[in-house]
Amino acid sequence: MRYFIECAYLGTNYAGWQIQPNAMTVQEEIEKALTILLKEPTSLMGSSRTDAGVHAYTQVAQFDRENPISDISQLVYRLNKILSQNISIKQIYLVPDDFHCRFEATFRKYEYRILRRKSPFYQNMAYQFEMPLDVLKMNEAAQILFKYEDFECFSKLHTDVKTFNCTIMEAEWRQESDDILVFHIKANRFLRGMVRAIVGTLLEVGLGKLSVQGFEKIITDKNRQNAGRSVPAQGLFLMEVNYEL
Amino acid sequence: MRYFIECAYLGTNYAGWQIQPNAMTVQEEIEKALTILLKEPTSLMGSSRTDAGVHAYTQVAQFDRENPISDISQLVYRLNKILSQNISIKQIYLVPDDFHCRFEATFRKYEYRILRRKSPFYQNMAYQFEMPLDVLKMNEAAQILFKYEDFECFSKLHTDVKTFNCTIMEAEWRQESDDILVFHIKANRFLRGMVRAIVGTLLEVGLGKLSVQGFEKIITDKNRQNAGRSVPAQGLFLMEVNYEL
Repeated sequence: MRYFIECAYLGTNYAGWQIQPNAMTVQEEIEKALTILLKEPTSLMGSSRTDAGVHAYTQVAQFDRENPISDISQLVYRLNKILSQNISIKQIYLVPDDFHCRFEATFRKYEYRILRRKSPFYQNMAYQFEMPLDVLKMNEAAQILFKYEDFECFSKLHTDVKTFNCTIMEAEWRQESDDILVFHIKANRFLRGMVRAIVGTLLEVGLGKLSVQGFEKIITDKNRQNAGRSVPAQGLFLMEVNYEL
Repeated sequence: MRYFIECAYLGTNYAGWQIQPNAMTVQEEIEKALTILLKEPTSLMGSSRTDAGVHAYTQVAQFDRENPISDISQLVYRLNKILSQNISIKQIYLVPDDFHCRFEATFRKYEYRILRRKSPFYQNMAYQFEMPLDVLKMNEAAQILFKYEDFECFSKLHTDVKTFNCTIMEAEWRQESDDILVFHIKANRFLRGMVRAIVGTLLEVGLGKLSVQGFEKIITDKNRQNAGRSVPAQGLFLMEVNYEL
C-alpha cells in the first residue's frame, strides 16, 4: 500500500530534503519519526529535492507498507508532536500502489521572496535586496520563459538529467506588500538550481544591467556562464506539487 | 528639536520595550545605537510599553536634541546596519517641540495571532491553539466591548493608572488564512495586559466555556479574577500608533 505525506518545513537548519551522511536532512527526520510511530523501518521518496536552506510550504513524499494505517489522523497528530518545530505534517493519504509522487506530478510551484527593506519578521525566510528594481521589465523578461522549453542555461553543471526541457506554466513577479516582492513560477519540472538562477538573472534585468533581449539570448545560447549569479536559498519556497488523482 | 522614530521589532529575545537593569530591552538597544551615531547621549520615550516577547510591526518613540539631524535617511540607513536583525528602523521625522508620542496618540492598534495548526513559519510569532473555536460567538462577545469604557477586569493588578477607561474603536476576529486567526483591536489607550486578557477570555467564549452574557458580566463586575487566563506574549503585535499631526 502506498501513502502520500504532505509536509511543510523551514529549511534553514537542514542540508536540504534528500538524505545524506553526516548532515541533518528533512527526509531523515521524517523517516525516523515514521519508523518510530509505525514500528517498522519506513523509507520516504520525495517528489522534489530541495537544496540546503530552501523551504517548503508543501512538499509531497511517499512511503509503502504491507498493512493499512489504522488511524491516519492520530498518526499525523503524533508525528507533529515528535517532529521539531521546523517541520509540520499536513496530511497523509492512500494512493494507488503504482502512483509515483515524483513521476506523476503534473506541475510544481515555487515562490522566491525578496524583502525590499530590513524587517525582523522574515529572518531566513526571504532575501533582503533593497536596490531599486524595474519590476515591469522583470515581468517582461519573465514572459520570454514561455517561448522556450530548453533551459540548460539555468541548470547546475554536471547534472545527470537526460533533457533540459521544462514547460513553464506561470512566471510572474507580484508585489505582495510594501516589504515583499515575490516571483511565482510553475512548471511541469525544474532543473537543479533553476529557480534561483532565473531569479538572479531577472534581478539583473531589474537593475538595468541586462536587457530583455539579453535575457532571451542567455536562454538561446544555452550556456550557464552567461546567466546571472544564483540568489540565496533562504528566499525559495516549494509551494505546491500537483497530481491528477 | 523633537524627532519621532518608527521601528519594528521581534520581541522574542527582549525583556520588552522599556529599559530595565540586567535585561536586554528594545529601548536600550536603539538608544545605544542612536548615541553612537549621533555622537551624544540620546534617550528615547516610547509611545507604548510592550511586554517581554511582544512584537511591534510599528512602535513610535521620541528623542530630543539641540541641533537638527543633517541627513535623516543616512541615519536610518546606518541605524539599520548596526542594529540587530531583530529591530528595524522604518523612519525618523521632525515633530513640533511640544508634541508627545505617548500623550498625543489618537489610537493604538494591536493584533493577536492564533495559529490553528502546527506550522514552521510562525515560530515565536503566533500562539498555536488547535482546539475547535466558535469564531462567530467570539465576534459576538467582542462587540460587547463597544458598550463599555471601564476595563478594570482586563487590567493587571497593582498598576498605578488613574482610570481604567478606554474607548474601543475596533474589536474583531478575522480568519487571515487557513492557518491564522487574528484578533484586531484598536483603542485610544490600553491597560497593562489588556489585549492578552481579552483574547484569553474570548477564547473561553469560543470554546463554549463562557457565554456572551458571561463575558459581559465579567466586564461589569470589574474583577480581574473572573476573566480568562492571559494568552502568551508571542502572539501579540503592536501594529500602529496614530497621531493627528
